[in-house]
Amino acid sequence: MYKLWIANKNYSSWSLRPWILLKVLNIPFDENICYFEVGIGKSSHDKFKSFSPSGLVPCLVDGKQTVWDSLAISEYLYEEYPQVWPTDKNARTWARCASAEMHSGFSVLRQTCPMNLSHQSPLEKISRELQADLNRLQQLWQEGFTTFGGPWLAGAQFTAVDAFFAPIAFRIRSYQLPVSNAAQQWVDRMIALPAMQEWYHSALTEPVVEHI
Amino acid sequence: MYKLWIANKNYSSWSLRPWILLKVLNIPFDENICYFEVGIGKSSHDKFKSFSPSGLVPCLVDGKQTVWDSLAISEYLYEEYPQVWPTDKNARTWARCASAEMHSGFSVLRQTCPMNLSHQSPLEKISRELQADLNRLQQLWQEGFTTFGGPWLAGAQFTAVDAFFAPIAFRIRSYQLPVSNAAQQWVDRMIALPAMQEWYHSALTEPVVEHI
Ligand SMILES: N[C@@H](CCC(=O)N[C@@H](CS)C(=O)NCC(=O)O)C(=O)O
Ligand SMILES: N[C@@H](CCC(=O)N[C@@H](CS)C(=O)NCC(=O)O)C(=O)O
Repeated sequence: MYKLWIANKNYSSWSLRPWILLKVLNIPFDENICYFEVGIGKSSHDKFKSFSPSGLVPCLVDGKQTVWDSLAISEYLYEEYPQVWPTDKNARTWARCASAEMHSGFSVLRQTCPMNLSHQSPLEKISRELQADLNRLQQLWQEGFTTFGGPWLAGAQFTAVDAFFAPIAFRIRSYQLPVSNAAQQWVDRMIALPAMQEWYHSALTEPVVEHI
Repeated sequence: MYKLWIANKNYSSWSLRPWILLKVLNIPFDENICYFEVGIGKSSHDKFKSFSPSGLVPCLVDGKQTVWDSLAISEYLYEEYPQVWPTDKNARTWARCASAEMHSGFSVLRQTCPMNLSHQSPLEKISRELQADLNRLQQLWQEGFTTFGGPWLAGAQFTAVDAFFAPIAFRIRSYQLPVSNAAQQWVDRMIALPAMQEWYHSALTEPVVEHI
């Protein structure tokens, strides 16, 4: 049985990705939560080092194999479960590009609107840089819907690319970020998933930890 | 024939990754250089948008298929060329984790020591945060050497994980960053590759563009 290490469901956006992927694809796993350290400027690195070589979560353990990055986890799972990525080559390539762009980018959106499920209030001001990230996001998603027909980002099935943008769905709702109808529909569809609801409700009952 | 869009060889660290991978694996491709815009704070985004949907380089074009991220390019190539990642499953998983960690991390090292091949002088001061990135880097590489036997990061063959750290090899040399003997040996081995020499020498003869 896979063992998935994650941090606080309220805050840990990267943890949500493999968790939601495993849940939606019905791949069994044991969940292990290791809460962030409490205190301003305190790093959780040393704590996470006990199970993850990078000192970061998420981290998947499969027997002797440790897989310590969310994108690498997707590729690792894909070798056993082809439904992780779209079957169609074009869609699969697009999905991988979009996920890798997310992995290395959208830094303004990530920093200005950190995932915090107990936060529900509109952002006071949308900076030019944040708007640029939002524009790119919507353009990217729209390309997915138009090319592959929706309702998921890369076609008719939920795949890893939807999991990669799952934290963005929560952020758009928390900060009431203005997005197109098509984008909002995807956000609503994501948040309505039973597994997203499950994550959300566990997040709200977690011991509260303000992680800086 | 693949077409690979890259930016200035002197500066574009992300461009180097797929370029060196294709070269070392002897996969034929046409190289297209689009230089960064000149001027402080000027973005090259609009220029790059004409061929890359994210407005970023590198971007691989294969007929009708556009692959616009360096990690997605590696997976795209892997579907045709199994030598992109190690054959051994353990080594392949490790290589993907290390590459994805690079893709989303090492931000202090990247910001403090931007790739600039015409720069050759030691860094004045190594901050605590930079040292943390350097420590993690050496620990990661050492794990690769110890587990898979070297001389490359994930074993006897050069694979995409070496390509992903190729820009770091140039940075370690440019800024004379202090690293362990094992790490320095890998850096020297990388830089001695004919393809790395070819990239380096073209970089030095490029129209000089100070990209901020
Ligand atoms: N490359 C990683 C990035 C993961 C990451 O940055 N995780 C954060 C939490 S969401 C972390 O572990 N931070 C440790 C800390 O704050 O000390 C991945 O996607 O798996
Ligand atoms: N996710 C991308 C990141 C690429 C990236 O950030 N590229 C830089 C150049 S090395 C870029 O295109 N910057 C555009 C600009 O500076 O305007 C990848 O690895 O392919």
